[in-house]
Amino acid sequence: MGVAAPLDERKAAVSASGIDPLIELVAPGMERVNAVILSRVGSDVAMVPEIATHLIASGGKRLRPMLTLATAALCGYSGEGDVKLAASVEFMHTATLLHDDVVDGSEMRRGKLAARMLWGNGASVLVGDFLLGQAFKMMVEVGSLEALRILADAAAVIAEGEVMQLAVAKNMATSEDDYLAVVRGKTAALFAAACEVGPVIAARPAAEQAAARDYGMNLGVAFQLVDDALDYGGLEADLGKKVGDDFREGKITLPVVIAYREGAEDERAFWRRALEDGRIDDGDLEQAIRLLRRHGAIEATLEQARRYGAAARGALAPFPNRPVVHALTEVVDFVTARAH
Amino acid sequence: MGVAAPLDERKAAVSASGIDPLIELVAPGMERVNAVILSRVGSDVAMVPEIATHLIASGGKRLRPMLTLATAALCGYSGEGDVKLAASVEFMHTATLLHDDVVDGSEMRRGKLAARMLWGNGASVLVGDFLLGQAFKMMVEVGSLEALRILADAAAVIAEGEVMQLAVAKNMATSEDDYLAVVRGKTAALFAAACEVGPVIAARPAAEQAAARDYGMNLGVAFQLVDDALDYGGLEADLGKKVGDDFREGKITLPVVIAYREGAEDERAFWRRALEDGRIDDGDLEQAIRLLRRHGAIEATLEQARRYGAAARGALAPFPNRPVVHALTEVVDFVTARAH
Repeated sequence: MGVAAPLDERKAAVSASGIDPLIELVAPGMERVNAVILSRVGSDVAMVPEIATHLIASGGKRLRPMLTLATAALCGYSGEGDVKLAASVEFMHTATLLHDDVVDGSEMRRGKLAARMLWGNGASVLVGDFLLGQAFKMMVEVGSLEALRILADAAAVIAEGEVMQLAVAKNMATSEDDYLAVVRGKTAALFAAACEVGPVIAARPAAEQAAARDYGMNLGVAFQLVDDALDYGGLEADLGKKVGDDFREGKITLPVVIAYREGAEDERAFWRRALEDGRIDDGDLEQAIRLLRRHGAIEATLEQARRYGAAARGALAPFPNRPVVHALTEVVDFVTARAH
Repeated sequence: MGVAAPLDERKAAVSASGIDPLIELVAPGMERVNAVILSRVGSDVAMVPEIATHLIASGGKRLRPMLTLATAALCGYSGEGDVKLAASVEFMHTATLLHDDVVDGSEMRRGKLAARMLWGNGASVLVGDFLLGQAFKMMVEVGSLEALRILADAAAVIAEGEVMQLAVAKNMATSEDDYLAVVRGKTAALFAAACEVGPVIAARPAAEQAAARDYGMNLGVAFQLVDDALDYGGLEADLGKKVGDDFREGKITLPVVIAYREGAEDERAFWRRALEDGRIDDGDLEQAIRLLRRHGAIEATLEQARRYGAAARGALAPFPNRPVVHALTEVVDFVTARAH
């Protein structure tokens, strides 16, 4: 294992190299998005904004709403609909996180106690539902049926992807293709939708809509694969959750699929015991990381992420708007560089 | 306590007196609604239709989608949008039930094991999310932004009502007004929306839209109050769940609010121990029922339900279509007569 750079230094290096142009580009829009978010978590029922704000204010990057603003800008959109759609996308994401933490029994989220640990599973489920309802209300206000179709479709596909993940959890027979289908659903579908609605509200041709969607889908897959690598990679503070969460929850992710495929029979027995039977002893996470490294599984996962990243960059070819294309290209580097 | 009539006899009596005209009126439409429901629970992820169908096929009355078809007919609607909106309403209702069972930790639903007991809390949450996504997709296909606004608003209000219920649970200071606010959210909002979208897709004036909404809202409150009375009333098999669920879950419903308000100090101490502290011993449910009867709390709750029922009937006044008005009036009687 290499020696990790001190956190602040690493963060500074990463952020100078990648996400800054996007942040700068969408800063005025994101101010309005944040104002909309704050106004739309309001409710006479005090627990609703308490829970929603606990998560929303906990320092997520807000990458998805930034992508909506950027792809709208990419297509020369000049209305106000992008702001509400971006806020809708963030609400959908937040709802997903609230529900995921219940599904996974997670204790932490973004370095803080998960909402369910403070207010209970029930309230987390219900506030997620509230945010979904608010998201659809905002989409209706924007008035684009096509944007509504895209985001409603994403909502269903995300849930399907998560159910698929439950089905493949604890099953070492999961193939790389199975796992990539999970990732396209649970993570990449929302990235794709967030990017696709930009050209849609700008009333651009279908080819540009498809290209923006491709960009988002590929970026989303890359993002998840890097996350999977990081979950075994030791960048705990950066992720805001403990290393080894996926391992403890019996999640079969790409690094594990690769190490299992390449592993000897005694290694496979180890993975089956830990992830299928859920019998995890002290030192097992360290052993898992050793096996992943022995077969280059982390490197292979990151190599896959880079391939999806290259596809995301390629999808931007049809767009002539250089500053936005530059910012979106840099985001790909930011996402794939997180693991280095 | 009165002697309950044998179940089959009671069911026959109730159904002859009330819901039959509605069932007959919407039968052709409901066949199409049921076909849409079956086609839209489909997914490549096998667990999704398994869970959804477990609940959807478990013999709910499908009252809400029938109301959508009936209010569309009330306004002379002749298109196909009512069928998809009705299916959307049923999906929203099913999603709510899946989530509620997780929130309440319920073991039974409609006389069968709750989905969460068979597939787990996580899968129940996620399949609920999937159904919500599918519901919004169907609404988009219908293409009425106003119907979308109404149903998205209902989704948020339902969740708010449920959170409010969590907040008032275990709190004997809950007033009648507090509780009625919960009911308007968690139950009546979907009845109201289901009825309001009928005139909306029929492009009727705002007054008719408001009248249909009033009908649904008042019917929904009546429906919930009767349910609350039944939960202490001994019609177990008819409800498909055990009597006393609300009591065991510490839910403060109208019968309890009334009995607590009217009760002596030792009775109040009983309610606080059982519902606030959750310390329930053998015989406590019977004691609760005795206290409710001593103060006429069940009768007072049903009297309230009848008042809301009368308001629902009154809301139908502007509509000239006699057969549909008759069917919708009879539904009110059906809903309020369930407790007798």
